[in-house]
Amino acid sequence: MAPSIRIGVVAPGTRIDQALAERLKAFAADSFLDRAPEIVVHPQCFLSAGHFAGDDAARLAAFVEYANDPTLDAIWFARGGYGACRIAEAAIAQLSDAARKKTYLGYSDAGALLGGLYRNGFGDVAHGPMPVDLTRQGGEAAVKRALAWLIDRAPESLELSVMFEGKTMAFNIMILQSILGTPLEPNVDGCVLMLEDVGEYLYRLDRALFQITSSANVRRARGIKLGRLGDVPENDKPFGATEEEMLKFWCAKAGVAYLGRADIGHDVENKVVPFGALKR
Amino acid sequence: MAPSIRIGVVAPGTRIDQALAERLKAFAADSFLDRAPEIVVHPQCFLSAGHFAGDDAARLAAFVEYANDPTLDAIWFARGGYGACRIAEAAIAQLSDAARKKTYLGYSDAGALLGGLYRNGFGDVAHGPMPVDLTRQGGEAAVKRALAWLIDRAPESLELSVMFEGKTMAFNIMILQSILGTPLEPNVDGCVLMLEDVGEYLYRLDRALFQITSSANVRRARGIKLGRLGDVPENDKPFGATEEEMLKFWCAKAGVAYLGRADIGHDVENKVVPFGALKR
Repeated sequence: MAPSIRIGVVAPGTRIDQALAERLKAFAADSFLDRAPEIVVHPQCFLSAGHFAGDDAARLAAFVEYANDPTLDAIWFARGGYGACRIAEAAIAQLSDAARKKTYLGYSDAGALLGGLYRNGFGDVAHGPMPVDLTRQGGEAAVKRALAWLIDRAPESLELSVMFEGKTMAFNIMILQSILGTPLEPNVDGCVLMLEDVGEYLYRLDRALFQITSSANVRRARGIKLGRLGDVPENDKPFGATEEEMLKFWCAKAGVAYLGRADIGHDVENKVVPFGALKR
Repeated sequence: MAPSIRIGVVAPGTRIDQALAERLKAFAADSFLDRAPEIVVHPQCFLSAGHFAGDDAARLAAFVEYANDPTLDAIWFARGGYGACRIAEAAIAQLSDAARKKTYLGYSDAGALLGGLYRNGFGDVAHGPMPVDLTRQGGEAAVKRALAWLIDRAPESLELSVMFEGKTMAFNIMILQSILGTPLEPNVDGCVLMLEDVGEYLYRLDRALFQITSSANVRRARGIKLGRLGDVPENDKPFGATEEEMLKFWCAKAGVAYLGRADIGHDVENKVVPFGALKR
């Protein structure tokens, strides 16, 4: 039986284990039966070079190879960590028409690539769960959600408000901060921008939001929604405002609408948010 | 006996204790004798509102009051922490001619104000030790160095290469990152830019350097020097490059000269680096 689609997995940031790749393939086969995809995990995902899943050259080559492969329908980023920003600009410059027809899915550090792809006119880019989410307690639901999006564009996979918002975009706060003013910064104009993060002190998120909401580009967003801020470490002094008060403060200063909560985060409930207008 | 100069201390970020203020005044009197300054510590420094030395309104009002006070010769930022970026733009908009004649000294989080002041044509802005450095082991040397700069423009207080570099500027890496693209970003054109940090994982500094060296403004710097990166936490995986290799990598990518080490950091050896051309 032919697979429903063929998905290429690459790791532009940090590596994954071979065992996770095998578990991912078995899970996809079991969960989707006759709609099961073929998942092709690039051996680059298992490399290790310091912090990274192989050095910059290896990560760049693997991404470009799979993105340009016309037999693959989607590129799924294995996990975040750190490293996408080191290769994204050079990689995108090498992409072909075959790459433009693909779907790209990931979040966290992979947002640097998503931003750059969307900026360069790639029309099918989305923020959502990654293979590494299988390692979370209950992570199967997240991975199934991502696969249902990749295979069938299942509406249940979407962050609910995506259906009603015209154009959307989603980012990890620290990643969006870090690509502002770089060749990876996407045009936020008219989008509902959803922001999430994990493991950051509120004062650091506040500083990042200062920079994000100072951006003339971000100020053209239709509004900002707050996803989940997971595992905020306890500081030696309390920040003095809730996370929602924090974002409201910066939105008010910047003249951007604060539009409430978004159902995204570094967790198993993380929903899919396509970049730009929803294509059905 | 009249004081040599009058120094106003304010805390745009995090608070200090009253005991530290008293210790600072006594230390300055003992160390400089007939050249001793009068140090006026604004009561705002002792306020507490969540993370901050008083709320934004209190911190802004104290800074503006002292900066505009014609009887003060210098504004010395009490410490870093976090908070300067929240008040800097609004504060600078309220400054008068008396404020333009003053020296401003600090580092770390205070860099957000230094950047904004320099951007707005304030000619006497410098990166250097703060009162809080008295709490470090051996911190008296750092504070004495700062005072010698404020009182006498002592050349021994300077980062040595400042004498030979034409124009200079210094920042905490995370702070410079966070003000790029904001109303606090200074013009780096032609400057030797010195960067330091403390307590950050190398992968985070690498991400910040990606953004910093992507800036067209920073690319017009004459070059970048690496100050000390203190207390880099051990990560679950080694980064895979030394701190100097990391900065060289980004400088090479950006076409900016890497000019070696700078004698600045979050430590008692931290030297003074004026913004722009050295005035004697």
